[in-house]
Amino acid sequence: MSSSSSRQRLNIDNINQHVRSAQYAVRGELAVKSEQFRASLVSGASNLPFNQVISANIGNPQQLDQKPLTFFRQVLSLLENPVLLEHEDVLLNQLDYKLDVIARAKFLLSKVGSVGAYSASNGVPAIRQSIADFLERRDGFPANEADIYLSAGASSGVNTLLHIICANEKSGILVPIPQYPLYTASLSLLNATCVPYLLDEAKNWGTDLATIRESYEKATAEGVDVRAIVIINPGNPTGASLPEEDIRAVIDFAREQRLVVLADEVYQTNVFVGEFHSFKKVLRELQKENPDKYDSVELASLHSVSKGMVGECGHRGGYFELINFDPKVQAEIYKFVSIMLCAPVIGQCLVELMVNPPKKGEPSYELYQKEYNNIFEGLKERATALHKAFEQMEGVECGTPQGSMYLFPTINLPPKAADAAAKEGRTPDEFYCMRLLEATGVCLVPGSGFGQKEGSLHFRTTFLPPGTQWVGSIVKFHQEFMDQYR
Amino acid sequence: MSSSSSRQRLNIDNINQHVRSAQYAVRGELAVKSEQFRASLVSGASNLPFNQVISANIGNPQQLDQKPLTFFRQVLSLLENPVLLEHEDVLLNQLDYKLDVIARAKFLLSKVGSVGAYSASNGVPAIRQSIADFLERRDGFPANEADIYLSAGASSGVNTLLHIICANEKSGILVPIPQYPLYTASLSLLNATCVPYLLDEAKNWGTDLATIRESYEKATAEGVDVRAIVIINPGNPTGASLPEEDIRAVIDFAREQRLVVLADEVYQTNVFVGEFHSFKKVLRELQKENPDKYDSVELASLHSVSKGMVGECGHRGGYFELINFDPKVQAEIYKFVSIMLCAPVIGQCLVELMVNPPKKGEPSYELYQKEYNNIFEGLKERATALHKAFEQMEGVECGTPQGSMYLFPTINLPPKAADAAAKEGRTPDEFYCMRLLEATGVCLVPGSGFGQKEGSLHFRTTFLPPGTQWVGSIVKFHQEFMDQYR
Repeated sequence: MSSSSSRQRLNIDNINQHVRSAQYAVRGELAVKSEQFRASLVSGASNLPFNQVISANIGNPQQLDQKPLTFFRQVLSLLENPVLLEHEDVLLNQLDYKLDVIARAKFLLSKVGSVGAYSASNGVPAIRQSIADFLERRDGFPANEADIYLSAGASSGVNTLLHIICANEKSGILVPIPQYPLYTASLSLLNATCVPYLLDEAKNWGTDLATIRESYEKATAEGVDVRAIVIINPGNPTGASLPEEDIRAVIDFAREQRLVVLADEVYQTNVFVGEFHSFKKVLRELQKENPDKYDSVELASLHSVSKGMVGECGHRGGYFELINFDPKVQAEIYKFVSIMLCAPVIGQCLVELMVNPPKKGEPSYELYQKEYNNIFEGLKERATALHKAFEQMEGVECGTPQGSMYLFPTINLPPKAADAAAKEGRTPDEFYCMRLLEATGVCLVPGSGFGQKEGSLHFRTTFLPPGTQWVGSIVKFHQEFMDQYR
Repeated sequence: MSSSSSRQRLNIDNINQHVRSAQYAVRGELAVKSEQFRASLVSGASNLPFNQVISANIGNPQQLDQKPLTFFRQVLSLLENPVLLEHEDVLLNQLDYKLDVIARAKFLLSKVGSVGAYSASNGVPAIRQSIADFLERRDGFPANEADIYLSAGASSGVNTLLHIICANEKSGILVPIPQYPLYTASLSLLNATCVPYLLDEAKNWGTDLATIRESYEKATAEGVDVRAIVIINPGNPTGASLPEEDIRAVIDFAREQRLVVLADEVYQTNVFVGEFHSFKKVLRELQKENPDKYDSVELASLHSVSKGMVGECGHRGGYFELINFDPKVQAEIYKFVSIMLCAPVIGQCLVELMVNPPKKGEPSYELYQKEYNNIFEGLKERATALHKAFEQMEGVECGTPQGSMYLFPTINLPPKAADAAAKEGRTPDEFYCMRLLEATGVCLVPGSGFGQKEGSLHFRTTFLPPGTQWVGSIVKFHQEFMDQYR
């Protein structure tokens, strides 16, 4: 009892152990170390073998090269300082604001009052209506604003839904492997059961129903009360873009086994191959064909301003839509979100702008479209260049980029590397990523942070960082690493 | 199994029952009903006996009369649209921006990059440093940026801290009664134990150590592992402003019983009587007098941009500072907040503006000070006017307004009113507030939403709504209610 630490009330062994056991690799040891490197480069006191840290570990577009969309930010500046609206002539003639920017700001202010005021717990009604209108246009089926809940990014929406669904430690959620670690971390915190199902790397990381069924049956046989299935489409970390038949198969399985479908669709505009099929649309089509069969399939679909060409992570905006949920359950969801009062209102406004961008013929349309397309093409080009580099690397296998912001290649590392990793108490992929960071300043996330098939190794990289130098430094490092441990 | 509802996977009986049991009256039935009334007034189709809904149920300054502070919103507009900084002359000469507004926006952008990018999980380092500087100025003791965590309002900070502290259902937290229901709701969700202690209405709702000790001992005897004590100062819903000796007594009790102190200090600038004493300052003074004795007293102090003269609830900005916490526990707190990525970045910037407002001699100082003081004086005047009205009402007792944004009078209702309430399955204070809302459009929160001494009845009202008409309508309603049920 002599050290100050042991006299404290809270220590690592007596705090909530569910927090302790949660894993969140995207912002784990490597990310923390990369921030230390960055600080030491800024201070000028480093003798690191690189002069820049490249944060390819996190999908944070505006930290890197991506510029915000002009229309969005012009509107937001007026929402923050509505006094500017008293100077329309200055805005229009000297500051490049357009009439539709001013009109939108006035519209939103008329609905929101002040962006400094709390909104309704589930979000500003007019913004929920605007989202419903967007969903109707996107899917060709009606949407109801009362079923939409604004959230502080999609993460907060996932947190809400898992809190409602998981009743106790036997409650199980089917989670794809590899997955975005928000799911496993949240399930750890809730002390509920993660029921992993493997995605099929050979099929471009698509869903394989036989595998899902096997996982489900195994868990059920072990007494797990499997309640929901998570699908991330387009995929994170995999970049997969699911074909419609995969989505139909998942919904049908959910119907058969009475599972809630959690569709994480935050990358819905980041699609390079094929097109995005929303779970909502596919479900409604199935319902149309066979109403009695599908009317009670519960679906929650999540979206966010953080990804896509919007890339406004820092604003923490998002929403989820509930389909076929029991009204009494929805009332509990409303109460749950009300305890945290409401999602950030400026983020809610950004959601409105995302789902209702300038239309053809409106003054801001041309610039908006140009900026939007440039970002899209830029991402596609970078994905392709990175993929090309990976194809040339010894022992690296990577499918064609399909969507989202990531590539998730397999890396085949020599046994000696695995031995060296074991000596440091690391998995081989962690070891690889740590050496890469130390040698090049490039920060990736090891595949083990997302889960991977036993015996396989991967890393996840975003293709957001500009330029090709960082890609070259990965290629060079990889060769040296292989030479050292071969 | 014929209704669609019974075929759904999730129903009110099988979802997380801890969510179901959580109570959050501030946004409960009355608030929902008031929103319905508001919508029906807007639609013009109502035959309600009033023409305006007055939301005195929630401390939401900018929903009502309070204007945002000009300096803050000018800076935020530049952060949202940095292109405006290319037009300094227009800003300065035509739009009333000052040089310090521009300088601050440039400073924040240099530290944040884009407000659309994720920040570090615990917040932008330079903003944490600015908060540390503020705390040092406020308290006269050093503060460390590494101990500061930005949060999405104080609510999210409370959520984080309770998640860490509560290990299982035996973990107990001392919570004042009456309290802001965030605490009991969060403890319900966590399935931890609320250990209520009564505040002393006769002592202006101050803390009474004998009462705290009694609650602690009773809980401990029942096997509860009491770990922390919550203090809300200035008080919500009570408006109490604690004298320094009460704070010393609480800290000393926390030391003696090894309790973490959670100091909810979001109303620290809303003080009309005496002055605000921060727990940090008092703890540091005690440590200075007797380091060995107080070095391991853990304190978490929370603050927010939502209250005070700032009143920017919709921006969801806040922070907490940890004092004397174990570094390994802090690492778990860091991991916990990282799972939700980061607090809204524009809200973080607003925290920076709040803790570092224009200084004397700077171009924006005079206007800032004038706006700030006007808000302060306006709140004080309204509190006084409301208090005066309560003094004239039969059976209503209310202490002198001391601070925060609320009054919490006792109401003595006739037995017949209690009988009528029971017939509706309501508590008498709920019944009273419901009738008031239906008759006048004024929405209050019944005391039972915060907890109250058995046999006593209260309501909470903010003194934010402008004008005196709504106060008059409460007085008139009250007289009629008393006449009806006497």
